[in-house]
Amino acid sequence: MHATALPTIRPRPFPAELLSALQARFGERCSQAAAVREQHGRDESPFDVTPPDAVVFCESTADVADALRLAAAHGVAVIPFGVGSSLEGHLLAVQGGLSLDLSRMNRVLRVNAEDLSATVQPGVTREQLNAEIRDTGLFFPIDPGANASIGGMTATRASGTNAVRYGTMRENVLALEVVTASGEVIRTGTRAKKSSAGYDLTRLFVGSEGTLGVMTEITLKLYPLPEAVSAAICHFPSEGAAVQTTIALIQLGVPIARCELLDANAVHGVNLQSKLGLRETPMLLMEFHGSPASVQEQAETVQEIAREHGGEDFQWATTPEERSRLWAARHKAYFSAMHLNPGCRTVTTDTCVPISQLADCVVAAKREAEAAGLPHYIVGHVGDGNFHIAYLVDPARPEQRERAEALNARVVQRAIACGGTCTGEHGIGLHKMDFLVEEAGEGTVALMRSVKRALDPQNILNPGKIFAL
Amino acid sequence: MHATALPTIRPRPFPAELLSALQARFGERCSQAAAVREQHGRDESPFDVTPPDAVVFCESTADVADALRLAAAHGVAVIPFGVGSSLEGHLLAVQGGLSLDLSRMNRVLRVNAEDLSATVQPGVTREQLNAEIRDTGLFFPIDPGANASIGGMTATRASGTNAVRYGTMRENVLALEVVTASGEVIRTGTRAKKSSAGYDLTRLFVGSEGTLGVMTEITLKLYPLPEAVSAAICHFPSEGAAVQTTIALIQLGVPIARCELLDANAVHGVNLQSKLGLRETPMLLMEFHGSPASVQEQAETVQEIAREHGGEDFQWATTPEERSRLWAARHKAYFSAMHLNPGCRTVTTDTCVPISQLADCVVAAKREAEAAGLPHYIVGHVGDGNFHIAYLVDPARPEQRERAEALNARVVQRAIACGGTCTGEHGIGLHKMDFLVEEAGEGTVALMRSVKRALDPQNILNPGKIFAL
Repeated sequence: MHATALPTIRPRPFPAELLSALQARFGERCSQAAAVREQHGRDESPFDVTPPDAVVFCESTADVADALRLAAAHGVAVIPFGVGSSLEGHLLAVQGGLSLDLSRMNRVLRVNAEDLSATVQPGVTREQLNAEIRDTGLFFPIDPGANASIGGMTATRASGTNAVRYGTMRENVLALEVVTASGEVIRTGTRAKKSSAGYDLTRLFVGSEGTLGVMTEITLKLYPLPEAVSAAICHFPSEGAAVQTTIALIQLGVPIARCELLDANAVHGVNLQSKLGLRETPMLLMEFHGSPASVQEQAETVQEIAREHGGEDFQWATTPEERSRLWAARHKAYFSAMHLNPGCRTVTTDTCVPISQLADCVVAAKREAEAAGLPHYIVGHVGDGNFHIAYLVDPARPEQRERAEALNARVVQRAIACGGTCTGEHGIGLHKMDFLVEEAGEGTVALMRSVKRALDPQNILNPGKIFAL
Repeated sequence: MHATALPTIRPRPFPAELLSALQARFGERCSQAAAVREQHGRDESPFDVTPPDAVVFCESTADVADALRLAAAHGVAVIPFGVGSSLEGHLLAVQGGLSLDLSRMNRVLRVNAEDLSATVQPGVTREQLNAEIRDTGLFFPIDPGANASIGGMTATRASGTNAVRYGTMRENVLALEVVTASGEVIRTGTRAKKSSAGYDLTRLFVGSEGTLGVMTEITLKLYPLPEAVSAAICHFPSEGAAVQTTIALIQLGVPIARCELLDANAVHGVNLQSKLGLRETPMLLMEFHGSPASVQEQAETVQEIAREHGGEDFQWATTPEERSRLWAARHKAYFSAMHLNPGCRTVTTDTCVPISQLADCVVAAKREAEAAGLPHYIVGHVGDGNFHIAYLVDPARPEQRERAEALNARVVQRAIACGGTCTGEHGIGLHKMDFLVEEAGEGTVALMRSVKRALDPQNILNPGKIFAL
């Protein structure tokens, strides 16, 4: 599904008997108010709002288990909801049903500082977690930009700017408590760093987009705050030159912590919004973590390689305030673009390719977007081979959306052809179901479906996402 | 199953018709010779040999697919076999059937040096892979000691000495080609470093011990050979002091590449076998990777922390020859012990615990082993919280094996009670099925079973391992 329309699936009936039971169990925490339903029927994707029949605000694992048992008894769909920052239509109630709002399950349950781990409820946001553990000298590095919920980040296998050094949610979830489709509470994984104890159910749930179970506790790896941190920007004559610099850094094994590409359009938006006065050329925004000597060494290596590729105007930000300003600006690229194009919506690509292929893929995507005459900008976690080209479309002009989707399809096909993936970190949702089949093959998607049927025989857990059943 | 007996499951019939079909398809590559069957009915565990009915030597994915289709048509068990170095009874044909010997599928298919990845057949051993990529300046770090096959390492989610820095097979397999229970060939993952494209089937197959599919191609991450490498040994007054040093290093985030504990018994064995003349006290054997400055910095930090815990006699090995000698000795600990106790077999624990709990767990295991009067030694990948206590038992004295299993059970229960796992890297096999239930819970194991039934409805893929169906 990379077309603009929602799938036309008849919503299932939402029995009055179920509603009564939910109201009896949850009282005012079960809502059918239009505004509440509408808020829970959308995400940051360009799809039209598709509200659920009701919303239950869960406050405990027992709440989730009871809601799931009731929904299961009536064969009604259940969609877990965190903060609504997903990008591929994950939260839309395409078959109606119940949205399980987990935002009130926002407690950091345990911090095991001496073991470098913490256990949180799914509604905890990443900024909240880092605020609550500040005194421990540890931090949780995964940073997708948005202040997403840990539950949502786990469900989409999120990553973001720090993943090049610290990995993604795949590498950083140690253990889970999950409520299954029948309302049973199970646990996967342990607090040990590694294990060979049976199937890796933790990794099966990470990235399952709410289709296999509802995560109610998440145990995460934490990391010691680096002794030294330094950020730098460097301007380049072209996107290709910036990416070639990145490729060389990765191939050399430089342990860079963040390596972000912004094209001139992204820099322009950031300047307007954040008044940074940056030169409006392609640039890399980098961060180095380590001991003072190691950070210094990384910085010297990077400057040398960047200069070989025409990089200039190296500017350093060593104080926390300067760094925060730079990263805040980077994270505002999306809103800057929206601000520059009032009323627009964005169609965002999310391919991730083997690092040697990245320059060709970025340059081709840029060329095609310019030829199509659509407003766009590029940001990328280029150290991972992952970049986003965001096309800005006017909702009143459907042909713009079609053109953006056609460009997206070319970006994806190029990624798949060179050994990459259609989605590095956003997930499949409603938007990339056809791409998943192109990438993985029919047989592999059929195997995913058989796992889904085994764990959710009634197909009540976020149905219609990742693949149709 | 942590008792000493094999499960009493009636082997399935092995129809003459199947044998004829296999002989027609594979000719002399299908063998029923007693010696061949016997060789394929054991591993390094202390279980009795349990041979398959026949062995097929596969040379291609098509061979594997054809063998699986034939076995599936007759409902006969299929057990993939690499080099036979697993430790928990994984390879024993407890329900009879067909051993698929994959050791001839030993080609490195593609090395994508510029993307830091390689694709290999499952019979490639880790030493072979590193020899074949030597010219690229890259290496594959996962090192479980034995020269295991990459297929076997993937199937058991192996790790070993370098995992503290580079992760385990879980983190280092990018993509797979798998033959399913019906003989269909599918692919999971891509060569991109990260992906959010649907269920993480790659991680589901990694560690599935041959029970969900037969892996026929494995794409691995490679790493640039570090610019500088240095190894060191340091002696300690007790196991506890050595482990406390390790805990402090991990909590500080020192990027140590290897951090191995040997107790005095292990050092004694190594001395006898390898003539190293080491002081026979508990010791850490460490390795540091990085730039010259970073290695120097790590070394200084480690020395300071070790001294605080009574560490002394720091000895450095900076030449490749010295390092190889040390690591070869470490890897020979197992054979040294066997040599010291001719005719003995070993029962080996494999718990992995949250790092803060490690000193208590090691010290208690040591105390109990000494009190029981069983010959034993301890080696441990202590940077990960993973250690092995190996009890040496005389096969002629079954009460010794019973005593070793009882000690093992106490070590496991202590690990589970403090948030750890019964197996850090060896897998469940036949030996730890009861422990898996204690660790994960009945509901979680039931969920694993439902995944198994979905992917292998006839239960022909390495049946009887991980759990009974």
